[in-house]
Amino acid sequence: MSSSTTIRRLSVFSPVPADIDIANSVEPLPISRIAEELNLGSQHYDLYGKYKAKVLLSVLDELQGSDDGYYVVVGGITPTPLGEGKSTTTVGLCQALGAFLDKKVATCLRQPSQGPTFGIKGGAAGGGYSQVIPMDEFNLHLTGDIHAITAANNLLAAAIDTRIFHEASQSDKALFNRLCPPNKEGKRTFADVMLRRLKKLGISKTNPDELTHEEIKRFARLDIDPDSITWRRVMDVNDRFLRKITVGQGPEEKGMIRETGFDISVASEIMAVLALTTSLADMRERLGRMVIGNSKDGEPITADDLGVGGALTVLMKDAINPTLMQTLEGTPVFVHAGPFANIAHGNSSIVADKIALKLVGKGGFVVTEAGFGADIGTEKFMNIKCRYSGLVPQCAIIVATIRALKMHGGGPDVVAGKPLDKAYTSENVALVEAGCINLARHISNTRDYGVNVVVAINKFATDTDAEMNAVKTAALAARAFDAVVCTHHAHGGKGAVDLGIAVQKACENQTKTLKFLYPLDISIKEKIEAIAKSYGASGVEYSEQADKQIEMYSKQGFSGLPICMAKTQYSFSHIASQKGAPVGFVLPIRDVRASIGSGFIYPLVGTMSTMPGLPTRPCFFDIDIDITTGKVMGLS
Amino acid sequence: MSSSTTIRRLSVFSPVPADIDIANSVEPLPISRIAEELNLGSQHYDLYGKYKAKVLLSVLDELQGSDDGYYVVVGGITPTPLGEGKSTTTVGLCQALGAFLDKKVATCLRQPSQGPTFGIKGGAAGGGYSQVIPMDEFNLHLTGDIHAITAANNLLAAAIDTRIFHEASQSDKALFNRLCPPNKEGKRTFADVMLRRLKKLGISKTNPDELTHEEIKRFARLDIDPDSITWRRVMDVNDRFLRKITVGQGPEEKGMIRETGFDISVASEIMAVLALTTSLADMRERLGRMVIGNSKDGEPITADDLGVGGALTVLMKDAINPTLMQTLEGTPVFVHAGPFANIAHGNSSIVADKIALKLVGKGGFVVTEAGFGADIGTEKFMNIKCRYSGLVPQCAIIVATIRALKMHGGGPDVVAGKPLDKAYTSENVALVEAGCINLARHISNTRDYGVNVVVAINKFATDTDAEMNAVKTAALAARAFDAVVCTHHAHGGKGAVDLGIAVQKACENQTKTLKFLYPLDISIKEKIEAIAKSYGASGVEYSEQADKQIEMYSKQGFSGLPICMAKTQYSFSHIASQKGAPVGFVLPIRDVRASIGSGFIYPLVGTMSTMPGLPTRPCFFDIDIDITTGKVMGLS
Repeated sequence: MSSSTTIRRLSVFSPVPADIDIANSVEPLPISRIAEELNLGSQHYDLYGKYKAKVLLSVLDELQGSDDGYYVVVGGITPTPLGEGKSTTTVGLCQALGAFLDKKVATCLRQPSQGPTFGIKGGAAGGGYSQVIPMDEFNLHLTGDIHAITAANNLLAAAIDTRIFHEASQSDKALFNRLCPPNKEGKRTFADVMLRRLKKLGISKTNPDELTHEEIKRFARLDIDPDSITWRRVMDVNDRFLRKITVGQGPEEKGMIRETGFDISVASEIMAVLALTTSLADMRERLGRMVIGNSKDGEPITADDLGVGGALTVLMKDAINPTLMQTLEGTPVFVHAGPFANIAHGNSSIVADKIALKLVGKGGFVVTEAGFGADIGTEKFMNIKCRYSGLVPQCAIIVATIRALKMHGGGPDVVAGKPLDKAYTSENVALVEAGCINLARHISNTRDYGVNVVVAINKFATDTDAEMNAVKTAALAARAFDAVVCTHHAHGGKGAVDLGIAVQKACENQTKTLKFLYPLDISIKEKIEAIAKSYGASGVEYSEQADKQIEMYSKQGFSGLPICMAKTQYSFSHIASQKGAPVGFVLPIRDVRASIGSGFIYPLVGTMSTMPGLPTRPCFFDIDIDITTGKVMGLS
Repeated sequence: MSSSTTIRRLSVFSPVPADIDIANSVEPLPISRIAEELNLGSQHYDLYGKYKAKVLLSVLDELQGSDDGYYVVVGGITPTPLGEGKSTTTVGLCQALGAFLDKKVATCLRQPSQGPTFGIKGGAAGGGYSQVIPMDEFNLHLTGDIHAITAANNLLAAAIDTRIFHEASQSDKALFNRLCPPNKEGKRTFADVMLRRLKKLGISKTNPDELTHEEIKRFARLDIDPDSITWRRVMDVNDRFLRKITVGQGPEEKGMIRETGFDISVASEIMAVLALTTSLADMRERLGRMVIGNSKDGEPITADDLGVGGALTVLMKDAINPTLMQTLEGTPVFVHAGPFANIAHGNSSIVADKIALKLVGKGGFVVTEAGFGADIGTEKFMNIKCRYSGLVPQCAIIVATIRALKMHGGGPDVVAGKPLDKAYTSENVALVEAGCINLARHISNTRDYGVNVVVAINKFATDTDAEMNAVKTAALAARAFDAVVCTHHAHGGKGAVDLGIAVQKACENQTKTLKFLYPLDISIKEKIEAIAKSYGASGVEYSEQADKQIEMYSKQGFSGLPICMAKTQYSFSHIASQKGAPVGFVLPIRDVRASIGSGFIYPLVGTMSTMPGLPTRPCFFDIDIDITTGKVMGLS
């Protein structure tokens, strides 16, 4: 029995009711109670309503030097389009550790994108009896972080087009006079952000009046090449008609039209910055050095060159504080950041993990989720996130389902919105055994980081003992530390107690140190090739465009960054239909982009959609408010 | 001396320091203290950090039947482009009433648009020693209302284009099957929002399987005419390149391109809905009946026809609660809604005013701001806002400055960003006297509503006694109840004590009832003409397009709505350069639009920009964060 005062026992029903009904059946505790359990005083957080609080970064300074808890990362096998319950397992495991195993525990999750909530996807707060509550607040607005990202991203976009516009119609001198206007006494000064540009240009003068004509030109004229602009606008709405647009068609914009487009907000580089930053000062630097494109001379142009890095930081100053919520069983949850796991690195934030590790302290557990499988999620967790945070996980969980393993074993296609083939709902041990080749590679890849691997078999009602035993056998053969069946969806934390015990043992037995897949000081191509090899590829093929970009980024001095592959999550390879553990394929690199502010190079393997659409009948048809109680209805 | 425990005495310095420096020099009280002074318990509000709270609408139900305080509206004379200190006077008056005259008082202000904060405009929290604090939180994000509006507005926009897209490629039957798919048992049901469309179509069936082929077609095919779509996307950023764009150019959108554009978020009809709604149930109805364009048959298509009215309400469910903040002297401020005063009605919200009136109670004062002069702001306050709220003001304040009166008297042009001509900084009584013709018409127009008018002469350092006396004389001659010099910018509430006393007398002496400028049951043209007459126009001229639209809206049954003129704020007439009190002009109506959800018809007199731009050197160059304290720097 837990000594925590916030733990709540669930009464579970069978069959499991709808997620929203379970979520609404539990009255959340005031979030100040959850904070108190973590030894947080009211000076450590800002309330956002009764059930959400932003925990301030100053907590990290206060707890500097105190011990961290165990650090557990949750990844999965290669999923079906239905998802294999990674978030649900993350939540369920924490409910088990906190409510049944008497451990200090904190869950770190990504904030879901609001747009898809109204499209096909539905909510993302876990499921069944393993959920974050209040579920509607988790899925909508939360504490405004994504809105802040949208505002900051689009301010930068507006600054780009406007700067090109104003440069086009003004002489160097007029431009300089407007940028550094004389005050009443006729004296000019540089804004602080302008000193950053001067420094970059190697101009050490601080008095505008001393600049030579040539220096004025170099300082004032960014000379952005419109064709080089990679910065797009964003919106947290599934608006497919904004994927490709032409802007500047108003008469006042004088024919300066340009093709561009919108991504969904979570795909913004600013989201990746938020996820990877380690402090306010670090965020200021990262936002300022984001590259939006090149000058016509091929020099990278940054947010600070445009003068907007400080303003972006101001817009993001509250977003940097993670949001505290709670599970159905009253354990604490940090919700923070939520970048795309295919085009970005897809992990929750470093600062949330760091705060959580200090708050649970020695012997406590922080369970954080990585996006998708070991190829996409865990690889980026280790090589990008842990590299920037300096944190080392003691245990990696791989969530597997019988359904997905059967698919990898050769089962029929699994399509969202269509009924499952009966191969997936009746026993077929051979199919499961054949599919374990996928699990084995995820285990092997993850073990290579020097971390103990626990396989969580997320049990569905139709799965049989024989099928689950087959998975256990295969997992142990692939040298997993343990493999455990869990039923947290149906039973809450109680259903993940065995998993919790296995995770505890794995953490206590961990002695190895983190081994990265590649060092930073090799070439971009060598890094790409190391990752491709881990996918099972026999080689890598670069398009002309990819070669050109790699050469440019290397020349610009960015070759020391880690690599963030943009690849389908549905296969180890670049072809979504290649299930199991494909080998011998050549990985094609179509293009290479850079997120200099967040700090990675991202090669594009195939085409990723960065703006979802709405179906004929979006979820929003069912979503409404109960006008008497104010409760949200129809969210799923 | 006030009996309030939250009142704070200011130490004022001369010359008046920068706004941000004054704002940062005062430590705000915890907002719970301000709430307590208003007899609000913690169950009545949600905290958003330490200095902001959202006051829940349920307060209105609890206080039903209790007395309202006095209701004071603040408008102004026709302004210069620099603004005449309407917000500052609103705040200063409240500081005087609360901190010096021992009255219960609440200020109701509009939330500023975040976009312009980074452009030219700077903050909007008042100025000098009359400000709302924390000033940075007031100007940035606040409690997310505008972000919620952006999200809701753009979800509706995405729903429109996507629906057209899906209708284009599907038969009536396929469309219906997707909208009402059979469940596992083969049974179809209508979502609640679909029943609204069926009702509108006069189809009383509730079982999808009973619809005839013709009914299926009418129900499932909205048949939106792309050329009729008036719903645009919005963004809270000054992004001029989005004024006119082409969407749908991606290959997956199959050539369904369309010209459209973005407005700044505060220009969204949803902002006007928020400002004019009276309850959650009312908001649900207003959002659902917003018209986005017509079917090819000329029928208005609503958000509920698209199935999205409920989801929009869910996105707006927290935004409906006004935000509580405080002035420099510790009096309460409600910040809520902020629609454009030229294209929309430009007033803060009805629900904030209603809550505030109950909370200050009998003998207390609620001071609410209307956008721009009596022509634009007060006219819409009376004929639209008070008509929907049922509230009656006891006093209307008209803020006047010597600067603006000199302009109306024939002084040289006043241009933002350029030094003022010395006519404005040296005494010139004759110029002031000549300009009072503008003040006189604002007084006369406002008195026609049956309300006592108090003129607030917002004193600048260079204004002389003789000039101010000239204004007083002219104001009283025009039958103002009183005219008072005030110096709240330099002295805080202390500088507006005389204004406070005059306002109190005006309220206590008010016996008349509110007389609207026009009844609702006359034709759209008759209403437009009544307003035009109040401007001094001798007649109205309609374009062909305006005539066509008026005929359409009348036919569609919308002629009973009030009128919201979209006109320049810089003149009583449609020509911004016509200062003073122009007469005899013919007011041209270029086009007529409708905001059916918010509930008004808006004739366009000239072209209003609904998306500002950024200058060559936007404010954002100066905005940054102090990375050690986390404080915002450079906001003005």
